[in-house]
Amino acid sequence: MTTIARQVRLASRPVGLPQESTWRLTEQELPALEEGEVLVRVTHISLDPAMRGWLNDARSYAPPVALDAVMRAIGVGTVAESRHKSFAVGDAVTGMVGVADHAVLPGERLQPVDLGRAPAPTWLGALGMPGMTAWFGLFDVAAAKPGETVLVSGAAGAVGSVAGQLAKSHGCRVVGIAGGPEKTRWLVEELGFDEAVDYKAGGIHRALRAALPDGLDVYFDNVGGEILDSALRLLRLKARIAICGGISAYNATEPVPGPAHYMSLLVNRARMEGFLVSDYAGRFPEATADMLARIEAGTLVTREHVVEGPLEAFNDTFLMLFSGANTGKLVLELKPA
Amino acid sequence: MTTIARQVRLASRPVGLPQESTWRLTEQELPALEEGEVLVRVTHISLDPAMRGWLNDARSYAPPVALDAVMRAIGVGTVAESRHKSFAVGDAVTGMVGVADHAVLPGERLQPVDLGRAPAPTWLGALGMPGMTAWFGLFDVAAAKPGETVLVSGAAGAVGSVAGQLAKSHGCRVVGIAGGPEKTRWLVEELGFDEAVDYKAGGIHRALRAALPDGLDVYFDNVGGEILDSALRLLRLKARIAICGGISAYNATEPVPGPAHYMSLLVNRARMEGFLVSDYAGRFPEATADMLARIEAGTLVTREHVVEGPLEAFNDTFLMLFSGANTGKLVLELKPA
Repeated sequence: MTTIARQVRLASRPVGLPQESTWRLTEQELPALEEGEVLVRVTHISLDPAMRGWLNDARSYAPPVALDAVMRAIGVGTVAESRHKSFAVGDAVTGMVGVADHAVLPGERLQPVDLGRAPAPTWLGALGMPGMTAWFGLFDVAAAKPGETVLVSGAAGAVGSVAGQLAKSHGCRVVGIAGGPEKTRWLVEELGFDEAVDYKAGGIHRALRAALPDGLDVYFDNVGGEILDSALRLLRLKARIAICGGISAYNATEPVPGPAHYMSLLVNRARMEGFLVSDYAGRFPEATADMLARIEAGTLVTREHVVEGPLEAFNDTFLMLFSGANTGKLVLELKPA
Repeated sequence: MTTIARQVRLASRPVGLPQESTWRLTEQELPALEEGEVLVRVTHISLDPAMRGWLNDARSYAPPVALDAVMRAIGVGTVAESRHKSFAVGDAVTGMVGVADHAVLPGERLQPVDLGRAPAPTWLGALGMPGMTAWFGLFDVAAAKPGETVLVSGAAGAVGSVAGQLAKSHGCRVVGIAGGPEKTRWLVEELGFDEAVDYKAGGIHRALRAALPDGLDVYFDNVGGEILDSALRLLRLKARIAICGGISAYNATEPVPGPAHYMSLLVNRARMEGFLVSDYAGRFPEATADMLARIEAGTLVTREHVVEGPLEAFNDTFLMLFSGANTGKLVLELKPA
């Protein structure tokens, strides 16, 4: 029995925002499994800002997605066929399945997920890469301590919404930045942020200074740009900036200015540090256990923005990240058109 | 017996480079000493890039020099009169004496210096604030390790020349950046740097890439600007940038762009950290002992650029820092006109 996989491949490297013409939908007959391989029927595809970086032909932490290759993406699915001893047909798994409805992977590159404890989208959000990113970025890279003031940008996104809640439960004062009154209200009223600043309302530096009258000890940065520069001006002594992302520049077609106030790092003996969650893979079980416990205790609100649709919906769904259309973790749940 | 002090005071805040009109020379009759105070006859005045920052009316790590106040400066001098039990007439001391030929300070704010072990200018250079800055910046902030590649800017200056030599003796490969062939030759031939790049020769990024084909683990930054941005592009995994200064922007009259390639910190899981040597004051004895031992063993080359002149020579001497006219530690040795 052969399987035909439908796949979204990279047709051309985008300049600025990806477009429909960036992609090409293909059908491929998958080869028979080799020993150790697993066939996954993909049910949920994760949309992450970092995916934009993978489209550029530039040296980075991961090689770019090659032209004509299946677009790289994390997903959740069901084992449809297995030649790996750890996986049986029907098991729920997660891994780098790509933007496709079926994928063949070595079993070593899949992890089981327990859909009885959390639904698939949550395994791509708080219990997946974004949640791990928040956990290690906040506790390890930024080393937030109780009593400190923490600023989070992209705070209504998959990573920021978790980072802010973790900081709050850790005894920090937490200020979030998000776009629009609906998101800022959600941060304060549902997630327990102390304050939220709407960057779309304008006057961002003045607003941040008002929300942070005594400055900040930790800035968890998902956006870069003007907001990072503003945060630099608000550093307290020995402050830490964790550079998690810089979505404001991901689709730039012109050179983007750097943070002009970086010398505030000197004045305040502060540091700015970049990190990649994949470096912490060995410690994911520790963080996952902690996150599951928080979710089951009701102390961590998880939210996913699930778009149902076929693979053809991939580009439009992906673009929601850059217009700020999603609140919480953005997921494409594969459904026939 | 009263003492008339000649003093250089801040007459107006400079925009761009300081000028003669920035300063006013005054004579002041010093009051009789109170208990615990010491009268110092100043012999040597330290010229440091950081002094430029103290002229700006901006929140920083130290309050700005007030208008009409004596310009802040470190110096070496001789005790002329003492009402402090730790100091006797004739003792050599160092401290924040200001740009003046005489100063009264509380004894607690003076440190003795041993002119039998090193001359006064060296106590303002390798054994003074610049040497301490190099020592703690390299070993503590940047945490340079044997076998790593270290890039130093301002490498022919007071801090950079020491930082590079410390890195070399620590087992690092060391590349220095300085202005002009005389300085770069000095770095390689006299100080033992592995390579030196002349930033005045143009094409700085290409030159740095050639000197650092495998990138850098540590960048000790004294200059900021385009060179910092270039260094960011050359980071290796887990690299550290110690932000010690940013002299390229100190006299800027227009906003200066920030380091556009800061996202290299993320890609390379690297960090950029600012520091102030004053935070390490409690550990100065440890570093001073190490530096004295290196100097006496002949393993650390110290060099001072001593300008002899009266206080009237202060502005011209200070400006040498910004044109790159000095090699090594710049000192004004007070001599009558």
